[in-house]
Parts: sequence; structure tokens; C-alpha cells
Amino acid sequence: MIARTTAKPVQAPVIALDVMGGDAGLADVLAAADMAAERYPKLRFRLHGPQDRIAAELARLPRLAAAAETVHTDEVVLGTDKPSQALRRSRTSSMGMAIQSVKDGAAHAAVSAGNTGALMALSLVSLRTMKGIDRPALAALLPTLKNDSVVLDLGANTECDTENLVQFSIMGAAFARTVLGLDRPRVALLNIGEEELKGTEEIKEAAALLRSVDLPMVFEGFVEGDKIGQGNVDVIVTDGFSGNIALKTAEGTGKLVTGLLAQAFRSSWLTQLGYFLSRGALRALRAHLDPNAHNGAVLLGLNGLVVKSHGSANIRGLANAIGVAHDLVVDNVSERIAQDLANFSARRPHTPLESTVAEA
Amino acid sequence: MIARTTAKPVQAPVIALDVMGGDAGLADVLAAADMAAERYPKLRFRLHGPQDRIAAELARLPRLAAAAETVHTDEVVLGTDKPSQALRRSRTSSMGMAIQSVKDGAAHAAVSAGNTGALMALSLVSLRTMKGIDRPALAALLPTLKNDSVVLDLGANTECDTENLVQFSIMGAAFARTVLGLDRPRVALLNIGEEELKGTEEIKEAAALLRSVDLPMVFEGFVEGDKIGQGNVDVIVTDGFSGNIALKTAEGTGKLVTGLLAQAFRSSWLTQLGYFLSRGALRALRAHLDPNAHNGAVLLGLNGLVVKSHGSANIRGLANAIGVAHDLVVDNVSERIAQDLANFSARRPHTPLESTVAEA
Repeated sequence: MIARTTAKPVQAPVIALDVMGGDAGLADVLAAADMAAERYPKLRFRLHGPQDRIAAELARLPRLAAAAETVHTDEVVLGTDKPSQALRRSRTSSMGMAIQSVKDGAAHAAVSAGNTGALMALSLVSLRTMKGIDRPALAALLPTLKNDSVVLDLGANTECDTENLVQFSIMGAAFARTVLGLDRPRVALLNIGEEELKGTEEIKEAAALLRSVDLPMVFEGFVEGDKIGQGNVDVIVTDGFSGNIALKTAEGTGKLVTGLLAQAFRSSWLTQLGYFLSRGALRALRAHLDPNAHNGAVLLGLNGLVVKSHGSANIRGLANAIGVAHDLVVDNVSERIAQDLANFSARRPHTPLESTVAEA
Repeated sequence: MIARTTAKPVQAPVIALDVMGGDAGLADVLAAADMAAERYPKLRFRLHGPQDRIAAELARLPRLAAAAETVHTDEVVLGTDKPSQALRRSRTSSMGMAIQSVKDGAAHAAVSAGNTGALMALSLVSLRTMKGIDRPALAALLPTLKNDSVVLDLGANTECDTENLVQFSIMGAAFARTVLGLDRPRVALLNIGEEELKGTEEIKEAAALLRSVDLPMVFEGFVEGDKIGQGNVDVIVTDGFSGNIALKTAEGTGKLVTGLLAQAFRSSWLTQLGYFLSRGALRALRAHLDPNAHNGAVLLGLNGLVVKSHGSANIRGLANAIGVAHDLVVDNVSERIAQDLANFSARRPHTPLESTVAEA
């Protein structure tokens, strides 16, 4: 029997927004918030940034103005700041204050397009990991041939032990249930082979543990890098080093192929005509792979939600990241994760893990 | 001043060929050998496999017949065999005997399209690592927007320490000098950021060591996964876990994008016409990304060369793998690696590494 979670939905979600993060600039961040406010009429905002400039934009955005309060600060975490520098401004910068709003209970989630390293450090220090979680993980959606898949960790932890991987699996499944709307997401560990013998000890032990307990997921064992794009699993779990490498390699290869494709179409007037005739379908292909459609990486496992928007996201991409935060808050994903973790630790095998591995 | 290697070229290269490995079947493997014999008239072969079937094929391939001797065996390492099972047939299977030919000095390199795990285990046990190398690495070429890049390790070692990464860099540079024809290849360590602070201790220390000694390469520091496809570095060095994930993710993403592209072109008669007009250029794109054009992963760092052809390679792909073996033998890459290692260990800093890292 699978333990079902019964987390109560949050009725009036509040998002703390770092209006100074990322390359887009304050006006675009607020335009994105306005777009999200249109999509989710119950959503409320705490806007962290310079009051005068925010007020000037809000004068043009009455819908957002009605849903927002401004918390003034002139201080900013720069893209080049080291985490240690960001931590010194944890209570005074727009990013730090957005996270502080979550900590204080004034907001349910923080959204920032700023410096990832700084955001992770500030979030971890301010919010701390939830009970049962040793380290947070950064999770995001990746396009596949079928539906999107969740991948985590994408770089919060360069090295992971067995317990981390199990916790990431539980968090990733909860995330997929909310964001992908799945009842029992298929979860797999990223590995260098699909056979039980492959991979590090940590991965083999994590697989044995995940097989041993009935969780609200279908545990599919191992998946290799070339299967990520196929969409046959919903959640792909790995350490932050491999996850970051996989995500960025996928990004880079996508650009490589589309770059070569553009070269191919430019090669003669015949291929240019071919491009012209196919452009509608090619636009759909681009839309399918568009990072803005998959924007919003979530730091899971803390006492409060933090969503990282891609630094180069456009207004629609930023609005999507805010949408991800909205959905996770309304669905009370933190509460679901806490319940799944409690269920797991009540049911996990108490025999030494070696014997579990041997039996598998 | 950079130490230059002076390895003497090998005049009469001999390849030991496992004619039973891979999905292609004996006839295709021999057709590929014949194609390589045409390309490299000095190349000689030792064909390991069933004598009668080989003789029947050679009757149709006089050029190969004139360049080959057959060493009979009926035993085969299966694709499903575990390394331990393969090791039990290390002196009787076609794969094991091909490697044994290299060990005995009867051939300069072994080529097999069989089971990778078995090939690595048999090679390591038979040939042992060369002086100065703790672990062998599997290296291969990857297509980029510019020239191909070398990536290693692709799965021989799931975990690597600082010394392994430095040794892989030296081996990868020697490989690139031969296979890519570069004088001073640009070498970078795969990492999750380009800043000095990012990544594991092993990677940071390896970077400090590579910066400290003038080697026949340009050390470029760190490279992220999304840069692999750009072709701005020639050699990308990483542990076997991340390398395998990166390689397979690149493969999978390539298939994802080309799969979506095929869907896009099928979507209407207009796009089908567009495809028809562009098909020449699209064929060139496919050729650029064709795994058969990049076939031939090399196990470097052993006392003898072993080349792994992709199990699903076609005749041309197999011939390319034999060509890689030919080039490495003629260029005496093992001797070059040995000289580079000796130069490195004579010049490496003897101050504690911590201080080197701190200075960097």
C-alpha cells in the first residue's frame, strides 16, 4: 500500500520577488510579475528592490500594483559576487531580503533570477534544510521527446551519498506530482549503465533502498544519459556534479544541432526556400526546446521554497518561473515532501543495507 | 620551453582484430578490415575467430587475405557476459586472444566491437597500466561546431583522483596530437563552472598541477558541459562517470533534436516540400553528427593499444575504428605518452600542492 499525502492546499500564495536579479532588469521582472498576476488572480507579491523605480513601473501596471507590496532596498547581489560576499548582505540585498521574507513567513516562496551560487548559499543559511533532509537539491524541467522530465540535483551538491540520493528521489517525485500533474511519477537514478552492477556504491545502495519501500512513485532503477531525452522516466536523480554536466551538455548539444541546422539552411537558395516552407514547423521545434518554457529551477528541501529563474530568461520565461513557484506553493509541496520523508523513514529496512543490496 | 617528443614511427603496423565482437557479424567486420587495408596498404591483420568462416570470407576479399593471418578460436565473449565471465576466457575467446596478441608483441593494437566492460577488464588484466599511469582511460572523438574534440574518460573509472585527471590530460593531449593532427592541443577539465573555486578538490588540484608544468598542450582550465559542442577546446578531461553521462547525454540530445526535426518536417505537405528542397544540406548535417564518422574509442594508458568500436557501427564505422588504431600505432602514441609522463614527473612541483592551489 502506498502512503498518500494529504497536504492542505495554500489558498493565498505570496511570492517574494527579487526585482534586481538577472540580466532582464527591473522593468522586465515587474512585467513578468504582472503577467503571472494575470494568470493567477489570487497571487500576491512582495517586491524587494528600490522603491522609487518600482513605484514608477507599478504606475503602469495597475493589476500588479493591486497585488503587491514593496519592501525597499538599494542593495544588490551582483552576478560576479562570491557566495561569501552575498552572505554579508543577506539582510540588506534584494535577494537576501526576498529569502528573509520566506523565513519570516511573510511569503511562501522567493523567486530570483540572480547569481545561482549566492542564491543557494543565502537560501541554505537563512532557511536551513527541512527535517529528514541533509542537503537541498536544485531541480528543473528538461524537454524530452514526450513530456518534460524533472532532473535533480543540478549543482547544489558536487558530491552526494546514498541518503542524499534517496532524499532527492523523494523530493523529485513530489515536485513531479505537482509540476507535471502525475500521480505516481517514474523515478530513475542517472547511471553509466542500466545493470545492477554498474555505478558507484552510493548509487547502488540508493537503488536498493528505493526498491525496498513503497513510495508514491514508480522506481525504475537506473537510466543512462542517452535516455534523458526520450521521456520514458519523469524524474532523473543524480549528484549535482553529474546533473550539472548532463543539463549543460544537453543545452550545448541542442545549440550545436540547431546551429548546424541553421548553417545547413543557409547553404544555398534551395535550402533557404526549404527553410521558408518549413519555418512554421521549425518554430514549433524551437518552442518545444525553448528554455523560457522550462524556466524555474527549484531549490527543494529547505524550510521554504526558493525558485531560480535563468539569468537570461525573457519576460515570459520569468513569468513561468513565478508560475512554478505559485504551483508549488498552492500544492504545498513542502508539506508533501515532509510526509513522504516521514513515511519513508518509518518503513525503511532496518536490516543492514549490505544484505538488501545482496538480495536485490 | 616545452619538451618535444621524438617517438619513432612504427613502419609495419599490425592490428589484432576480434572478428566476433559487436552486432555487425563476422562478414561485416572483415569487410571493414578490407576497407581499412585499402586505405592503409602497409597495414597487417591478425584475425581472431573461427577459421572456416574467416577463410570463406577471405576467399572473396583477396586484398585482406594477402594482409592477414588467422588465429582460430570458436569461443566468444557475449554482449551479456560480465567482466568476470569474460576473464575466464581471456586466453580462448576471440576478444581475449586479440588482446593477448598485443601482449605477446604479435600485434600493435587490438580492435573489438564487443562488450565494453569485458574489453576493459581483459585489457587491464592482460596488458597492465604503463609506468606512470595508475588507471587507463577510454577516449573518443565528439563532433562539435568546429573540429572534433577528444573526451576522456568515458567510463573506465567511475571515480578519479587528482593524479588520474592529470594523467588523463597528458594521454588525451597525446591522442589529440595524433588523431586531430594538432601541435599543442587545448586541454580543459570538465567542471560545473569556469571559476577557480568551482568543483571538487580533485579537479582544483589537477588544474593547479597542469598549470604548474609546461607540457605539449595549452591548458585552458575548466570547461562547462554546454561548451563541449562549441569546439573551443580540443581535449576535455573528466572522470569516467561524468564523461559517460556527458557523452550519452550529448548522444541522446542529438537524437531528441533530430527526432523533433523529423516530426516537424512530417507535419504538413509544405514542410515535406521544405524537407525535400533542403535534404542535401540536412544529409550533410547528419553526416557531421554521424557516430560512424567518430567511431573508435581508445583505451589509453596500457602497455599496448586497444580500440573499442561501437557495437552498432556499420562497415564504414568499423573501418574508421581500425583507422584510428592504425594512426595511433604508426604515430607511436604509447611512446609519446611515456615521454610526456616522464617529462611531467621530472618537472612537477615538489612543494606541497596546497600552496600551489592557494597561489593560483
